[in-house]
Amino acid sequence: MAIADDLDLNSYCLETAQKAQAASRVLATVSGQAKNDWLKASAAALREAYDSIAEANQQDIENAPKYGLTDAQVDRLRLTKDRVEGIAGALEEIAMFPDPIGATIESSVRPNGLAIQKIRVPLGVVFFIYESRPNVTADAAAICVKSGNAVILRGGKEAIHSSQAIVQILQDKAVEYGIPADAIQLVSTTDRAAVGHFLKLNQYIDVAIPRGGEGLIRRVSEEATMPVIKHFAGNCHVYVDQSADLEMAVDIVVNSKCHRYGVCNAAESLVVHQTVAEKFLPMIADAFAEKNVEMRGDEATCKIVAAAKPATEEDFYAEYLGPIISVKVVGSIEEAIAHINQHSSKHTESIVTESLAASRQFTAQIDSSAVMVNASTRFNDGGEFGLGAEIGISTDKFHARGPCGIEALTSYKYIVMGEGHVRQ
Amino acid sequence: MAIADDLDLNSYCLETAQKAQAASRVLATVSGQAKNDWLKASAAALREAYDSIAEANQQDIENAPKYGLTDAQVDRLRLTKDRVEGIAGALEEIAMFPDPIGATIESSVRPNGLAIQKIRVPLGVVFFIYESRPNVTADAAAICVKSGNAVILRGGKEAIHSSQAIVQILQDKAVEYGIPADAIQLVSTTDRAAVGHFLKLNQYIDVAIPRGGEGLIRRVSEEATMPVIKHFAGNCHVYVDQSADLEMAVDIVVNSKCHRYGVCNAAESLVVHQTVAEKFLPMIADAFAEKNVEMRGDEATCKIVAAAKPATEEDFYAEYLGPIISVKVVGSIEEAIAHINQHSSKHTESIVTESLAASRQFTAQIDSSAVMVNASTRFNDGGEFGLGAEIGISTDKFHARGPCGIEALTSYKYIVMGEGHVRQ
Repeated sequence: MAIADDLDLNSYCLETAQKAQAASRVLATVSGQAKNDWLKASAAALREAYDSIAEANQQDIENAPKYGLTDAQVDRLRLTKDRVEGIAGALEEIAMFPDPIGATIESSVRPNGLAIQKIRVPLGVVFFIYESRPNVTADAAAICVKSGNAVILRGGKEAIHSSQAIVQILQDKAVEYGIPADAIQLVSTTDRAAVGHFLKLNQYIDVAIPRGGEGLIRRVSEEATMPVIKHFAGNCHVYVDQSADLEMAVDIVVNSKCHRYGVCNAAESLVVHQTVAEKFLPMIADAFAEKNVEMRGDEATCKIVAAAKPATEEDFYAEYLGPIISVKVVGSIEEAIAHINQHSSKHTESIVTESLAASRQFTAQIDSSAVMVNASTRFNDGGEFGLGAEIGISTDKFHARGPCGIEALTSYKYIVMGEGHVRQ
Repeated sequence: MAIADDLDLNSYCLETAQKAQAASRVLATVSGQAKNDWLKASAAALREAYDSIAEANQQDIENAPKYGLTDAQVDRLRLTKDRVEGIAGALEEIAMFPDPIGATIESSVRPNGLAIQKIRVPLGVVFFIYESRPNVTADAAAICVKSGNAVILRGGKEAIHSSQAIVQILQDKAVEYGIPADAIQLVSTTDRAAVGHFLKLNQYIDVAIPRGGEGLIRRVSEEATMPVIKHFAGNCHVYVDQSADLEMAVDIVVNSKCHRYGVCNAAESLVVHQTVAEKFLPMIADAFAEKNVEMRGDEATCKIVAAAKPATEEDFYAEYLGPIISVKVVGSIEEAIAHINQHSSKHTESIVTESLAASRQFTAQIDSSAVMVNASTRFNDGGEFGLGAEIGISTDKFHARGPCGIEALTSYKYIVMGEGHVRQ
């Protein structure tokens, strides 16, 4: 698996995709037991191979200045013993989930006696393009194989040696358990043009999943000839209703904004009912001052909070991914809902309220993948939802929405049992 | 709703899509009762308005020669009293289905007490492009609105007066029941370029559904910037296993092939196990001779059936939509499965067998939207599956597969109830 930048890219990509499809056909009939045994054996092998993984990782660390990585980025790249333990633990956790494949989703017996079952099946081949840390390599392979799909992994060049070491172990163990090694392929070239080639191969690849910055996702969406599970920005809102418990509201807003700044389910916008604005805004302003979070407010906000800067219309659309939040005061819950539905990226919104009617109205009318009541936006996450590891959080409505776990990578087919039935 | 061919197409399409999106937001919160009342009132109004519908239909019939329609096509265009009764009855049937919107698909309470519900929601706006008979206009509008979606209907020019008469009635009744008239819009221009404009408007349209010939579906797939539910060819197979009841096999093959020739779930290919070929092929050849069905067989078939013509490799991929069938003799069920997975369009395949093991192997390994055991391929149909009316039969695996009824036009969102929950 050398990094060959001068190979014939087109035929390399075609061959990779064809091998993935062939592997997916075998994988579709591999038992759940074999897949789980593979996951557990891989976890053990990763722990055992720590030294050689660390060695590969060291190469990536040494190359980091070449890619202009910041200290924080280098730190995220580093595979400590704890982090490899985390990767192994995640595989074991995925092994414990029920096998989705072959499960009956619905069934009925028709008046004419035909017995109809709707059965869960894999999608086929997943093309996963990511920019993230090496742990994502193992997570993605595990989720895809557990759901019966072959995966083509296209990781960031910054982590390629670490990813190669991990994939090698997963492949070696796969073969031991009757899973084709080609079910887990890492793209061995770092040539950006490879992505474009793969995105044309809809005859072999069933879904493309980009995970990373907006530029990557936009490029994949535009070039892909197969369906894409997209994850655009998270401009998440917290709305503090007139009936909110204001202490609770401070906790939820601070947690939503400050728990981690760089994540898609962090709050970027605060909406406050005017009845409580005079009391609540100074409370939250104090909390934000402590955390050095900048408030960018509308006129009403700036009147109440001296430290707030005036917000532009752009601010209300912004995903800051940092210690800044936009603030808007509204006259009614209807205005809050309209403001949010207009500006949000349909990822996660939260209402803080003690009113049953307000909670019902907000959850019914907000059009986002997750709508929280009296809870932090940070809970929109596969792990927190009990879906296990996730391959992304979809901001689409089609096929999969919100955290995408194992089931998001499946389709279904109908099995119909008759006794010589013909149509009249 | 005049047919204006010279209007500014671009802005007409944009405005239509924007009105649809605005309507979809209102429609998402309309009660199931209101939608069902609308369906029933529309059915009654269609019956009552038979004379004016027939008058509009007469215009289409008179224009038919201009479009070069065949007699059979003109016949399908004609709205007799019986056919309008059929349209009305279909609306009443859709009214009887449970409302999918707001239903809880799954729910759980997490260890930390967060209560998570996965709730069914509409997709939003459907752009439906079809070439078929005027009854499809009413069916599609009913399925879309029942599932909470606004629809932009782009019907064939041959039926435009009939479709306009039907849509006018549906819109008039919609307003009476609190459903925005813009939830059901018929594209008033027959300019082909309009389709291209709509396919660019992914900001307003959530899914495009083409229904018609392969050329239309290919064009829509290629031009669409939003997801597409595709329905490509139906090259359906019947496999007669070595353990088949041969009388039953004749009935199922004949029904699958001859019940209706021009439909996507008609059989186009017959696969026979060599053990029974010498006995079965003459039986089916007699039955086909009676129906004037031409057999195109491989070498083994042609040896047994004198009347069979030699099949080319192209024959095994063909969707004839007429009285022709390809025939292949295989040495094993594995060979049958490999042949089918290679040549089929993944629509519908059927096995005739008395063997439990063979039925399990076939249903597990065949990768098609519906796999039948001892039943005609003709049963792959929304009505036969108990899904109610269908908007098409998807040959995709993504989002929706097989007959697409009301649920295929929905997505979901997560509603999360906390009591001040923040993430640790």
